Formats: sequence, C-alpha cells, structure tokens
Amino acid sequence: MKVDIIISADHIKQEYLENKVVVVIDMLRATSVIVTALLNGAKKVIPLLTVEEAFEEKNRLKLTNEEFLLGGERRAVKIDGFDLTNSPLEYVKDKVNNKTVILTTTNGTRAINLSLKSEKILIGAMINAKAVAREIAEINKDVVFVNAGTNGEFSMDDFICSGYIIYILKRIKKCQLSDIANTAQIIYEGYPNIYDYVKKARHYNVLKELELEDDLNYCCRKDIANIVPKYNKFKKIINLE
Amino acid sequence: MKVDIIISADHIKQEYLENKVVVVIDMLRATSVIVTALLNGAKKVIPLLTVEEAFEEKNRLKLTNEEFLLGGERRAVKIDGFDLTNSPLEYVKDKVNNKTVILTTTNGTRAINLSLKSEKILIGAMINAKAVAREIAEINKDVVFVNAGTNGEFSMDDFICSGYIIYILKRIKKCQLSDIANTAQIIYEGYPNIYDYVKKARHYNVLKELELEDDLNYCCRKDIANIVPKYNKFKKIINLE
Repeated sequence: MKVDIIISADHIKQEYLENKVVVVIDMLRATSVIVTALLNGAKKVIPLLTVEEAFEEKNRLKLTNEEFLLGGERRAVKIDGFDLTNSPLEYVKDKVNNKTVILTTTNGTRAINLSLKSEKILIGAMINAKAVAREIAEINKDVVFVNAGTNGEFSMDDFICSGYIIYILKRIKKCQLSDIANTAQIIYEGYPNIYDYVKKARHYNVLKELELEDDLNYCCRKDIANIVPKYNKFKKIINLE
Repeated sequence: MKVDIIISADHIKQEYLENKVVVVIDMLRATSVIVTALLNGAKKVIPLLTVEEAFEEKNRLKLTNEEFLLGGERRAVKIDGFDLTNSPLEYVKDKVNNKTVILTTTNGTRAINLSLKSEKILIGAMINAKAVAREIAEINKDVVFVNAGTNGEFSMDDFICSGYIIYILKRIKKCQLSDIANTAQIIYEGYPNIYDYVKKARHYNVLKELELEDDLNYCCRKDIANIVPKYNKFKKIINLE
C-alpha cells in the first residue's frame, strides 16, 4: 500500500489518481466544517465551487421539502445572503440537524472537483484523523492525500494534518511512503502539538487577524469525531455512506 | 525579499519565475558535480538534456582547440562512450582543470531548462550552500529554489538542502518565507546533520544500492566550496562569472 501527498490542488494530475483512494484535506477550515456538520446530524453536504451555483442549488431545493442551509466563505469571510460562514463552530446540532448544507469554499471544493478520477474520495481533518486512518487501512488501496492548499499554494496546516493521519496509519498498517509523505510524518513527529507548527503558516495569520482563533483551536484538536465523510461522485454530495 | 521553493521541476510555472532569482538544486548529484568541477578548475560546464545532444556538442568542440570531457548518468549509472559518471568524486583537478565539461543528467538539466524565464540562475548544493546564501542576499531579489526532484517527484535531499541555504540566508538577511520555504527550514533545524534525514529518501536508497555511499557522504558535506556557479542563458554554459 503506497501513500503519497499532493501538496496543492494546482499540482493534481488527474490520471495519477486512478484506482487510488483520495483523502481531501482542507483543515482550515472546509473539511473541518464538513466533518462537524455531519457529526452534528446534517443529512448531507453539497460542495459547490461558486456562489452562483450555491444560489441555484438553493432555488432547486426550495421546490422540495428539504430543509437546507447555505454556508461558506470568500476570502475567509461570510457571503451575503448565506446562513453560515465557514466557521465549524457555527455548525452546531441546533442549526444543522437533519438539514442539507450547501457549502461553497474556494480551496476545498476545488480539490474535490479535481479528484473525481480517483476510486473514492474521503474527507479528512485533524478532528477525524484517526477514523480516516482506520478507513484507509481497511480499504487497503494506494492512497493520495490531496492538500487543498491556499490559493494553489502549499499550506502548512494541511501538510501536518496529512502527516498526522499518516503517522497513525503507519502504526496500524504496513505502508510505503513517498518522500513527501515521509516528510509530512516527520514534521508531525517534530510537532505533535501541531499548533506550534501551524501558527507559522501564512494562512493561520490571515485567520488570526480575522479573530478566528477559536476556529483555529477547534480545527487543531485531534480525533474528536469518529466519522469519515465520503464524496459521492454520482449524487455530488458528501455524507457518511 | 520573498523566498519560495518549487518542490519538483514538474511544478514549475515559468511565468512565476520572471524577475526572480532561481537556485537550481539537485544535490544528489548533478549540482554537486557542477560545483566540484568548477571548484577544481574546469573552464565551464555545458548542461545538456540528452545523450545525443552531448555527442553533438562533443563533435562541435572537436573542431576547436578546446579540451573537453563528457560526463553524466542515466538511471544513476555511466553512459557508454562518456569519460566520467555523475560522481562528483571523479571531477578532481587532475582530470578537469582547464577543461570544458559536457554534462547530461536527467533531473538537474531539465530543471535549468525550465527556469530560463528567471532573471538569474544559480547552482546550489550542500557543498556551496553558504556561498549561495551570501550571493542571494547580495542580489536582494525574490528567490525561488527549484528542486530538481527525482523523475518529477519531490526529493527529500533537495528539500533539506534548500532548507539549509534558507536557514543561513535568514540569519544574514531579512526575508519572508512561503509556507514551503518555512517547512524546509524547519526540517533542516530538526536534522542539522542532514544525513539522518536524507537516508530516509527513496533516491538515497537507489544510490546506496549502487554502492555510491562515498558520493553521498561527499554531497552531504557543508560549505566546502566557496563558489557560486551561474547559468549563462545566452552562452548556454555554467561558469563562475
């Protein structure tokens, strides 16, 4: 079982993903939001690339009896007309239980869309790392961590998150790490309290300036969600099935 | 002054390099060979992509009075009809002094050719790291480390080498590191004896199986060459001017 990392959605060569399991990581904050929403009872998450698509989806859902919420961000802040931002702390049970979440985020959604040639797409974050590692071990196929990155660039937060999942995986399953996968694991081993590494990231500082430190603290917590969201290519939704 | 790393020649977006200084790193072993050849008196190095081009260049040089040598590798081993392999230990004064070296290597030469849009191309390795850092500080422009990588993939050896140069640079010049540049520096700080990190690299093990440990030891030495080779785009040669 081979383990590799693609450090930014910009570097994805789609054919490389064929027959492999992809774990999409955008821990600050899209994949942490998705995990939290589903943990707190959301029926599904519909990830969309643009605000326009989100409003179109809203209009389509209005014709059904489904209850839904619009969530997401542009440049890390709330979108006009949306119900929720991209803060996982807003996705509490009272708000999301039994609802469909239409989510548009820049980097995470793009990473999912560029990973469609893979066999399976899992959604990973620090908060569900152990569950993801166990699921990968069980599927037992070559795995590629697709780090969403920030505006096409390598992001330290996604990298150490991949490193942590690989660190757990290696302890439950024999696997062969690429140099970059090995390096991510080494970074995690050097910073088991990942906050000390993440706070050096440029993206971290953007969020800090926006006074989103509570989000940051939450997203850096380990293994508080024992679930693995999956992207269903045909239904274009994320749920737990 | 911004500092960034491109982790493999495959990820180069050529327009991104405009107005920037590029440091090409292929420490195992092409850039270590280039530094060593020039340190030991070679007049210039002509880096070429293919074996055919190398033989054509040889035939052209034969018509002049220049003394030359053919050096390089394919899959880390010697090429038929060549004078030297890609081992820096062969590029001693007795052999290379006052001669032109025609060099063909897979990853390093490719990285140079894909960096031509930059303002200046420097050749870096562990053995001339400090000299490269000083030169970058003096030029005082945004710099991108282009890691040749191995067959298009991230290579741990080039990464920690970039990290070491950045580590020195930060101590002599105020600079703004991208997340990946920061991570390379962190890796170096965790492994100041870089051999302990490099020996985890896949490429290291290829070289070790070929019994090239003396090369590895040499290429991991720090700052034994106080020179900075430069690629001249117009003459298509590498020398010290």
